[in-house]
Amino acid sequence: MGGYRLVSREYKAEDTVIRVGDVVIGGTAKVFIAGPCAVESKEQLLATARLVRQGGAQIMRGGAFKPRTSPYDFQGLAEKGLEYMAEARALTGLKIVTEVLEPDAVPVVAQYADLLQIGARNMQNFSLLKAAGRSQKPVVLKRGLAATMDEWLQAAEYILCEGNQQVVFCERGIRTFATHSRNTLDMSVIPALKQASHLPVIVDPSHATGRRDLVAPMSLAALAAGADGIMIEMHPNPEIALCDGPQSLYPQEYFLLMQELRALSGFLGGLARQKAVGE
Amino acid sequence: MGGYRLVSREYKAEDTVIRVGDVVIGGTAKVFIAGPCAVESKEQLLATARLVRQGGAQIMRGGAFKPRTSPYDFQGLAEKGLEYMAEARALTGLKIVTEVLEPDAVPVVAQYADLLQIGARNMQNFSLLKAAGRSQKPVVLKRGLAATMDEWLQAAEYILCEGNQQVVFCERGIRTFATHSRNTLDMSVIPALKQASHLPVIVDPSHATGRRDLVAPMSLAALAAGADGIMIEMHPNPEIALCDGPQSLYPQEYFLLMQELRALSGFLGGLARQKAVGE
Amino acid sequence: MGGYRLVSREYKAEDTVIRVGDVVIGGTAKVFIAGPCAVESKEQLLATARLVRQGGAQIMRGGAFKPRTSPYDFQGLAEKGLEYMAEARALTGLKIVTEVLEPDAVPVVAQYADLLQIGARNMQNFSLLKAAGRSQKPVVLKRGLAATMDEWLQAAEYILCEGNQQVVFCERGIRTFATHSRNTLDMSVIPALKQASHLPVIVDPSHATGRRDLVAPMSLAALAAGADGIMIEMHPNPEIALCDGPQSLYPQEYFLLMQELRALSGFLGGLARQKAVGE
Amino acid sequence: MGGYRLVSREYKAEDTVIRVGDVVIGGTAKVFIAGPCAVESKEQLLATARLVRQGGAQIMRGGAFKPRTSPYDFQGLAEKGLEYMAEARALTGLKIVTEVLEPDAVPVVAQYADLLQIGARNMQNFSLLKAAGRSQKPVVLKRGLAATMDEWLQAAEYILCEGNQQVVFCERGIRTFATHSRNTLDMSVIPALKQASHLPVIVDPSHATGRRDLVAPMSLAALAAGADGIMIEMHPNPEIALCDGPQSLYPQEYFLLMQELRALSGFLGGLARQKAVGE
Repeated sequence: MGGYRLVSREYKAEDTVIRVGDVVIGGTAKVFIAGPCAVESKEQLLATARLVRQGGAQIMRGGAFKPRTSPYDFQGLAEKGLEYMAEARALTGLKIVTEVLEPDAVPVVAQYADLLQIGARNMQNFSLLKAAGRSQKPVVLKRGLAATMDEWLQAAEYILCEGNQQVVFCERGIRTFATHSRNTLDMSVIPALKQASHLPVIVDPSHATGRRDLVAPMSLAALAAGADGIMIEMHPNPEIALCDGPQSLYPQEYFLLMQELRALSGFLGGLARQKAVGE
Repeated sequence: MGGYRLVSREYKAEDTVIRVGDVVIGGTAKVFIAGPCAVESKEQLLATARLVRQGGAQIMRGGAFKPRTSPYDFQGLAEKGLEYMAEARALTGLKIVTEVLEPDAVPVVAQYADLLQIGARNMQNFSLLKAAGRSQKPVVLKRGLAATMDEWLQAAEYILCEGNQQVVFCERGIRTFATHSRNTLDMSVIPALKQASHLPVIVDPSHATGRRDLVAPMSLAALAAGADGIMIEMHPNPEIALCDGPQSLYPQEYFLLMQELRALSGFLGGLARQKAVGE
Repeated sequence: MGGYRLVSREYKAEDTVIRVGDVVIGGTAKVFIAGPCAVESKEQLLATARLVRQGGAQIMRGGAFKPRTSPYDFQGLAEKGLEYMAEARALTGLKIVTEVLEPDAVPVVAQYADLLQIGARNMQNFSLLKAAGRSQKPVVLKRGLAATMDEWLQAAEYILCEGNQQVVFCERGIRTFATHSRNTLDMSVIPALKQASHLPVIVDPSHATGRRDLVAPMSLAALAAGADGIMIEMHPNPEIALCDGPQSLYPQEYFLLMQELRALSGFLGGLARQKAVGE
Repeated sequence: MGGYRLVSREYKAEDTVIRVGDVVIGGTAKVFIAGPCAVESKEQLLATARLVRQGGAQIMRGGAFKPRTSPYDFQGLAEKGLEYMAEARALTGLKIVTEVLEPDAVPVVAQYADLLQIGARNMQNFSLLKAAGRSQKPVVLKRGLAATMDEWLQAAEYILCEGNQQVVFCERGIRTFATHSRNTLDMSVIPALKQASHLPVIVDPSHATGRRDLVAPMSLAALAAGADGIMIEMHPNPEIALCDGPQSLYPQEYFLLMQELRALSGFLGGLARQKAVGE
């Protein structure tokens, strides 16, 4: 009783590769996702999209519906935000990913977005998982703040059960006693997941650390640990960001980091080929 | 920006007292809630209801919609379970509390139940909080597994914001490294909440510990720490319970514990009166 | 391999009762320990001792050797502090307990103190545990900040192994993500320990919470949960305490709490007798 | 009051470089430490030393005094183990690092070892820190299981205060609720420490994860995150290791990992030079 099946390596030995148009997640190349925490205005979003494109990421992130701890915090632009995201896509060719907060909203979000995101607070919102499972869109499933790997795998199972095989795990830090970073990025869950499941794994170092200066080293480390991609917060002007400014990269930092990540990605690819030959 | 207001002692100095018919939560007397983890069948539920009544609890708990970590675990009887709960109420006069899992289900659950429960996994399911806030029913809001007290207060604020002032906090253990109990019952949050907020606080020692033998000492301790009530899992036959058998009390254990809790409640009332006179 | 034996209920079914002169720990009556965090001066200590006595505690606590996170914090009066403790005992008849920080210091501390304390940071300082095991004095063994119950039992086993059967477990809070209290008082470990081991268990609500206003409710709760005693920080003038002022009770708060604890202790004794008769 | 000073970047802006003969820790090249958990016998140790050398690590680890949770577990060969370590050094030219458990043992361990290790359980054993501070040997200071970065910095300050400026921080995992790895390797503490302090930082992925299959990805990730070196457990025959077999690499795995680490180290050096030019 209980447990998971469809997400397991026992059920499917080879890696799942997810295609979003010409973007591939879980293949030999790495995927890079960047963008602001929240869609704030059309101008902000389109300016950011151009920067995201320029840096070389393939997918833009941005929240239209924002889950906020306090009801008095900025709650997002809602459907208007989704429209801006779609405009940004039309302008730049970037794919877009955005969070969906409730089962009823899945159809409308799926109409605009290329990938649905389910946030950490909703990792065990089973109605939402099932609704996402009935959609045809790939789902980025963030880890809950206090979720074990096993619970995370079972949450993904809810989506696969409903017929949607396209789930991407996204590690975004767990809650511990540590105070030097907002959450504790659990790097070891990347290879542990890879062994337990055939689904791709990406990392969000921005939410995991909450500190801009830790984003670059954690991004590089995540690739070295075997992650299939990185999701980064970047803002044209972090000082005036409506949410999570302190963890958003400046455009120049983002450009530099993308160069390093591409170089590391190439290096790691070579290492893997060498290892394959050696075996 | 952010934070909470309506739930605070600064906003409202005197304790909030919630009335559910003749049952009072947050007053001088303590409230006791008992029942099975899940509604399993009509027979099981009605038998349990009689035992709950006999032991002296005023409210019966029981899950009709069960949030389960794995999609392959028993998911509850759904609306059929709600009907049985209503029958149990008619039979015994007990009030009933049951969990609601999604915003759309609030109206139907509110039609049957006297109190709505929002579970730990949904503590930051903001759509659900708002939907509960638009209902007229008191809401038992369980603490998330990794929620700080501050986040919990802000979650309650979402409900009060929508016009529903009747929220009961329910501590049910937090996730830590400890392994002797399933979760770690955070006893100190009871007086800390009482100081920060005017809303009542109850404790669920069954989910907090996951061990039948720890339920009685934790229930007594919770009252001594100032809790307004206790919610206990009891099952006529824990060995065959469809969920959480190992933490459910046997009827005889429940009867004995209720005697002790009533005695302790009386003793603590005397202590409080004495203290009030001394001041 | 590994594990523990001498501390277990399997090895010794009946409760261990520790006698320190006429003071009994682990019997039917509860033991109360009070005093300042640190011995600061002869005047401070003797004044505090009189207040401790007046309130009714049987043992005085006070640190002569202080383990401090920073080397720049007050480190204690060392042997001079032990002398003042002995004077306080001569003056009031209180027994004294004080922390020992290194194996070599066990003999000198044992010469002055009635009970040795091993602090949370040293719970797995195995050389110190063995040295304490070779002494004839009862040992108060505090739980490490991140110690499981099993590790704690094994730490005590090191002491018993060396021939000293007189160990008192002292729960003082574990480290979690919670921020409303300094540590999280793990109340459920009290009955869990009582079931696993024959040794007495006391609780230090002052270090566990770090907040004066939480000390009274946590003390009452600990007794209700089955603790054999309470260790409280009290200071004649917490504002000028050299350490842990914010968690130290004022004398008047201490007097009132002691009254309540004695009353609760009597009530719980009656409950236990009634239960024994009922069986 | 409190805090730390000598370990901080404010006090000393440039990186501290520690020289152990011709081995450099904290410079541009990375340092690699490998060896068994415990010194088990002369034959085991000398065989391992040859393998360590062959793989290319510069320093050998191995415990002569073992801190064990249970008194019934293998406690190490004590001084005999130190002698074998010294023989292994004579045979291979490797430097050696070994743990010291108590203040009195510092002189004898310092007589044999090139570096002293202070283990996680002793991170706040202040007497031991001071004794190590009075020695002339570099100290590898492991992070306590529940230590914040700030507490770790203050523990190092105890050593520097006594006149020994040669401290290497070693991250070895913190205790969290996660169960897929024994501890949670806190990768983000590497760049956070580098920013707060001038002292070198290495990582022990073996103790952090407790799983052989996670050691390679975590080692690569740690270098990418900016660690100055890696400390790995390797055993000629992990199945018969007296401690920590499941986390010890087989010799072939160790050889392969060392190749990858050297390659990555070269790549990262190039990246750093490029970045320096770009600025």
